[in-house]
Amino acid sequence: MSDTQSFTTPETGISCGTSRIAGCRFSLHPMTDQFVSLIKGAIEEVDTSKTWRFTDDVSTCVRGREEHVFDVVKAMVLHTSKTGAHVALNATFSIGCPGDTEGDSYMAEDDVRLNEPAIKHLKQYVSSQFALYPMGDSDYMATIMAQVDTAQKHGTLKKGVHYASGLHGDIHDVFNTLEEAFQQAQQSKSSHIVMTVNMSINSPSHKEETN
Amino acid sequence: MSDTQSFTTPETGISCGTSRIAGCRFSLHPMTDQFVSLIKGAIEEVDTSKTWRFTDDVSTCVRGREEHVFDVVKAMVLHTSKTGAHVALNATFSIGCPGDTEGDSYMAEDDVRLNEPAIKHLKQYVSSQFALYPMGDSDYMATIMAQVDTAQKHGTLKKGVHYASGLHGDIHDVFNTLEEAFQQAQQSKSSHIVMTVNMSINSPSHKEETN
Repeated sequence: MSDTQSFTTPETGISCGTSRIAGCRFSLHPMTDQFVSLIKGAIEEVDTSKTWRFTDDVSTCVRGREEHVFDVVKAMVLHTSKTGAHVALNATFSIGCPGDTEGDSYMAEDDVRLNEPAIKHLKQYVSSQFALYPMGDSDYMATIMAQVDTAQKHGTLKKGVHYASGLHGDIHDVFNTLEEAFQQAQQSKSSHIVMTVNMSINSPSHKEETN
Repeated sequence: MSDTQSFTTPETGISCGTSRIAGCRFSLHPMTDQFVSLIKGAIEEVDTSKTWRFTDDVSTCVRGREEHVFDVVKAMVLHTSKTGAHVALNATFSIGCPGDTEGDSYMAEDDVRLNEPAIKHLKQYVSSQFALYPMGDSDYMATIMAQVDTAQKHGTLKKGVHYASGLHGDIHDVFNTLEEAFQQAQQSKSSHIVMTVNMSINSPSHKEETN
């Protein structure tokens, strides 16, 4: 349970006390015969050295400081989708999960994002759906609704759908929304926050929206 | 909130009082240039007439009685994967979500699964990861652990990973595990159960395991 004990202080970006490690389990699905080479190419371009990483036959898990987890996932998506292929991302972000502390050593890293310089100028329209699950708190619906408001403020909210909220726009705006919603939800009574994200990129069905 | 008020009685399979509608938001990702025709072909083969269904640019949502929701999702997966294509499923099952009641009329359907006869003889190895989120209950970890035990009893549990549990084996065994875990979790204090599932099928990385 040691990963549930403390927070990174927002003022300094330095983690204090026992680490509060974040993580993301994700899969990228390029809908092309060249899916293997696309994924391998992206892996070569993404710097994951500030995160613990493990890939199995279903998904990849990265763990470490929140900013590096988001940095790695966004970079993987962009380096795959810049090829023009239709790509889907499925991701589950989590923080405060009672469990083991594998990768805790990565909490000592600084807050400089390794991949942002190479990707910040890449434009990419994405359509996505996200859902927040603040665990162990009877007032969880209020936390969820507050973060739908966060998306509204960012201008990325598309609309609510069953079991999720739609976000769309440029990938950087959408990821900023997701990261802020994930952070803000941690200010609730829940110490364990889960956020699922499904993203569709370069879909044939997006052409009307973006042209 | 009307979909949180009552349960389907296990003895009769008949829903009583206000409906307890289940739902699943899912996406199928065939990793081939022919992804559009594969999905369209599967849609033509699956009978969704006992469920409410809506597809947007990111995912498809089906709602109705639990058994029909699972029947439709399994059939969509099998009719897509029987082509031999590498296919990934991402699905979020939910019941008891406070929200609207769209599709409630489908709760009056009987319990005869429309797609099972056409798919029950199809064999398919799948590797998957699932996670349960029993909402609004401080004792949620006990509910999760009990359902990992359910998977152990089914013989489909592969191993626990960060933020999920691995299930693998024949698709029918894996879906039986998922459906039972989802049902059993509803016996907890939580009235709102969410279950995410990621499934990888016909992956090049499975060849060693299945041959």
